[in-house]
Amino acid sequence: MNLILFEPWEIGEFGRVTASGTRARHLINVLKAPAGHQVRVGVIDGPIGVGTVVSVGVDSVTLDCTFDKTVPERPRVDLLLAVPRPKVLRRLWAQIAAIGVGQVILTNAEKVERDYFDSHVMNEEGYRPLLIEGLQQARDTRVPAVSIHKRFTVLVEDDLDRLFPEGRRLVAHPGADRTFRSHLSTAPGTHDERVLLAIGPEGGWNDFELALLERHGFARASMGSRTLATTTACIAALTLVHEALERS
Amino acid sequence: MNLILFEPWEIGEFGRVTASGTRARHLINVLKAPAGHQVRVGVIDGPIGVGTVVSVGVDSVTLDCTFDKTVPERPRVDLLLAVPRPKVLRRLWAQIAAIGVGQVILTNAEKVERDYFDSHVMNEEGYRPLLIEGLQQARDTRVPAVSIHKRFTVLVEDDLDRLFPEGRRLVAHPGADRTFRSHLSTAPGTHDERVLLAIGPEGGWNDFELALLERHGFARASMGSRTLATTTACIAALTLVHEALERS
Repeated sequence: MNLILFEPWEIGEFGRVTASGTRARHLINVLKAPAGHQVRVGVIDGPIGVGTVVSVGVDSVTLDCTFDKTVPERPRVDLLLAVPRPKVLRRLWAQIAAIGVGQVILTNAEKVERDYFDSHVMNEEGYRPLLIEGLQQARDTRVPAVSIHKRFTVLVEDDLDRLFPEGRRLVAHPGADRTFRSHLSTAPGTHDERVLLAIGPEGGWNDFELALLERHGFARASMGSRTLATTTACIAALTLVHEALERS
Repeated sequence: MNLILFEPWEIGEFGRVTASGTRARHLINVLKAPAGHQVRVGVIDGPIGVGTVVSVGVDSVTLDCTFDKTVPERPRVDLLLAVPRPKVLRRLWAQIAAIGVGQVILTNAEKVERDYFDSHVMNEEGYRPLLIEGLQQARDTRVPAVSIHKRFTVLVEDDLDRLFPEGRRLVAHPGADRTFRSHLSTAPGTHDERVLLAIGPEGGWNDFELALLERHGFARASMGSRTLATTTACIAALTLVHEALERS
């Protein structure tokens, strides 16, 4: 936990806040922060700041916080992800929030099992704490927006232009002729260009899905000859896109 | 499992091999491969090839295999990793093998707990199946070499030049002035240049450790402003180094 995040409604008058639960235990047991000690804090979807410990209780810590004037920018990469196995998704939430995504668009696909949609980590009360865990690791405050789509065709044909109106669309595909590098090194785009990255299910998109994505502006991009599992592919592809956007 | 790997001693005369256990179940239940069907196979630390199903038993499958003349090249990236928590390391083995590393040098550091060294996944019978799982995912045959070092100073001062005699040394460090990109874009090096990438414990290397690494040729490299957990940092940094080596 490199930044302790609070909900906006937790912050009282003059920036006073009382941490309990996991955050208090982190302050007491890991940071061992006595009164007067300063720690990095942030407001969820708001600014980053500094909290000064006022008092330490048995299982709560009170802080006085001051915050920056500006809010961190939303990461410029969005992720369109075929719903992975619940066990994989549970681990992925914090990792993608840490590496930085603006929104996560979860979709069905032929190779997605129907019951994946019933998992606890597909509900906001299941995934939100994991996203916040990732933000606290990476010192960000911007919670990725999440939307869930049970019909792939409806998503791509009807909803996608609203969710991702402008920017570059890439679909990770092991057999693609062109690499991420080659796609992203051309046409640097404007400084605020966004990228939407589509990652398929284990076993890949089927031909219909891939063709539909291509008809809606997605270019196939490979990460070389190695075929990676969902978690590794997500992190690797997000890393490459971030790297390219920082270069532009 | 995108490639089914066999130990060299499993392969009989004329390339005949009988798969049992996990590999047989994969052939029977996932690939549903009948007699005559061809699947991708490989020899551990040897060539890739094609296996033709000869017969399918209740829990075994017999294949006749032919193999390429050449063996895949060893990945050009090595990893020097402060031993992470056993739970993290268990998941990391397959991921780093999938993304591609030549060797893994595991080391102690101030912020590594002593009992991490006693974990099952620090023993070859614990980690080797996980490395092979990663290779089968990524269609590689080269098992990363693994060495374990309980004394950081001895490793860096006495053993490292033998383990990694030539190539570029980088240490991932969130506060570094220079990024991976900037380090790797200069001096492209020879076609067979190797890179040794050092990733510290959660909480980072201490000042002594960082200084010792620098005295032994490691340049600090950051991945931007976000601080990542070990797993994510490993995958992201390995991705960037691979990307740079493929460009050179």
